[in-house]
Amino acid sequence: MHKLVLMRHGESQWNLENRFTGWYDVDLTETGREQARQAGLLLKEKGFEFDLACTSMLTRAIRTLWIALDAMGTMYLPVHSNWRLNERHYGDLQGLNKAETAAKFGDEQVLIWRRAYAIAPNPIALDDPRHPRFDKRYAKIPADQLPATECLKDTVARVLPFWNESIAPAIKAGRRVLVAAHGNSLRALIKHLDNVSDDDIVHLNIPTGQPLVYELDDELRPIRHYYLGDPAEIEAAMAAVAAQGKAKKD
Amino acid sequence: MHKLVLMRHGESQWNLENRFTGWYDVDLTETGREQARQAGLLLKEKGFEFDLACTSMLTRAIRTLWIALDAMGTMYLPVHSNWRLNERHYGDLQGLNKAETAAKFGDEQVLIWRRAYAIAPNPIALDDPRHPRFDKRYAKIPADQLPATECLKDTVARVLPFWNESIAPAIKAGRRVLVAAHGNSLRALIKHLDNVSDDDIVHLNIPTGQPLVYELDDELRPIRHYYLGDPAEIEAAMAAVAAQGKAKKD
Repeated sequence: MHKLVLMRHGESQWNLENRFTGWYDVDLTETGREQARQAGLLLKEKGFEFDLACTSMLTRAIRTLWIALDAMGTMYLPVHSNWRLNERHYGDLQGLNKAETAAKFGDEQVLIWRRAYAIAPNPIALDDPRHPRFDKRYAKIPADQLPATECLKDTVARVLPFWNESIAPAIKAGRRVLVAAHGNSLRALIKHLDNVSDDDIVHLNIPTGQPLVYELDDELRPIRHYYLGDPAEIEAAMAAVAAQGKAKKD
Repeated sequence: MHKLVLMRHGESQWNLENRFTGWYDVDLTETGREQARQAGLLLKEKGFEFDLACTSMLTRAIRTLWIALDAMGTMYLPVHSNWRLNERHYGDLQGLNKAETAAKFGDEQVLIWRRAYAIAPNPIALDDPRHPRFDKRYAKIPADQLPATECLKDTVARVLPFWNESIAPAIKAGRRVLVAAHGNSLRALIKHLDNVSDDDIVHLNIPTGQPLVYELDDELRPIRHYYLGDPAEIEAAMAAVAAQGKAKKD
């Protein structure tokens, strides 16, 4: 039996400001750092050990991982940072406040952009300085693979090759893997693992900074999964994530 | 022309306490963290960019690297942590205060242990809990390769395979490499690069947290090398390192 641990990054500055972040490289808040530290301490307390850590190329996920590894006393673990674990690219919405966007376009349109499986926001233009091709961290990725917007379906399509080519072979080889990533790149992995329908996956809310344990058989089929933390805390955290993107009442 | 940057970790708690550290996994002091941050800012200011970072499996080197990468805004770089870049193993001296050891055995004996190229301190016993075979981070390394003590010659012998098999091929492939390591593992690299004699290498003092740039030709022969930082600061830092291990007068 294999164990895989998934962890969404701690609270970021733009989670706090309720803005569409996507590939924008915003950092963690102090709360986010503390969430990451608690996650690492919890994993250590529960006796989890890892051989490999995978994360995105975005600071909020990498820092979450680093803080957790530090708290576990395992800073020496190999870390694989890959753009395929990045957050969903939110196209032209990146940087906009979710509540403002909801007030302007209506809750329904924002919910479509956030949660329709196959409908992407407008892309950012090729000459927009926010386009990933201007970011040197992506310099080695073929330009035609870099997204200018994504629906969740697109995110799933670019996350899965990393699962199939890197994470899954490592797990099958007996390596214990920790993944620190984002709400939508983790949805992509969970959709694949649990064979979740297109309709259901958009309603799955993943709390920030909470280790999610998957027990997998030799074919990497899930036997069960569970959050390590306190159930009441996790329920509250999920509700908070679900409430994002609704127009503020005041 | 290739550029390789070497960096000794920032001040550690045991540098401060003047104790033989070796493979003991002591952390950075606040000063050490600030040194690492300044090193990262300096590299960024001078326009250095990297494709790969290599470090040891010891927290003080990894944290130095992480802080520097953070200051450079490049936390996403691949990091290769390898035991071959660890500090020289100081055998049975690990944990002893250098000044106390000098007062007990004399400056000369301590200088021999610290600086004779081929004389190692007494090994720690196989059943000593400080032996690296009890540390899970080294679990995958064949037990007969794990040192229980080392002279600098031994350190050179185990550092060079990592240079030859990992760092040198990466540089030849055009990757810009940053190495964050330790006084003696860096001495080993420098001895090899500059073909320094056994007698001279033991007198080479490397200041903590100061980026040292090697410009190399296509055969990885050094064209020149220089510290990036302020020359007066570097001279003072080298003198401070040289003065360690002498008996305190008071």
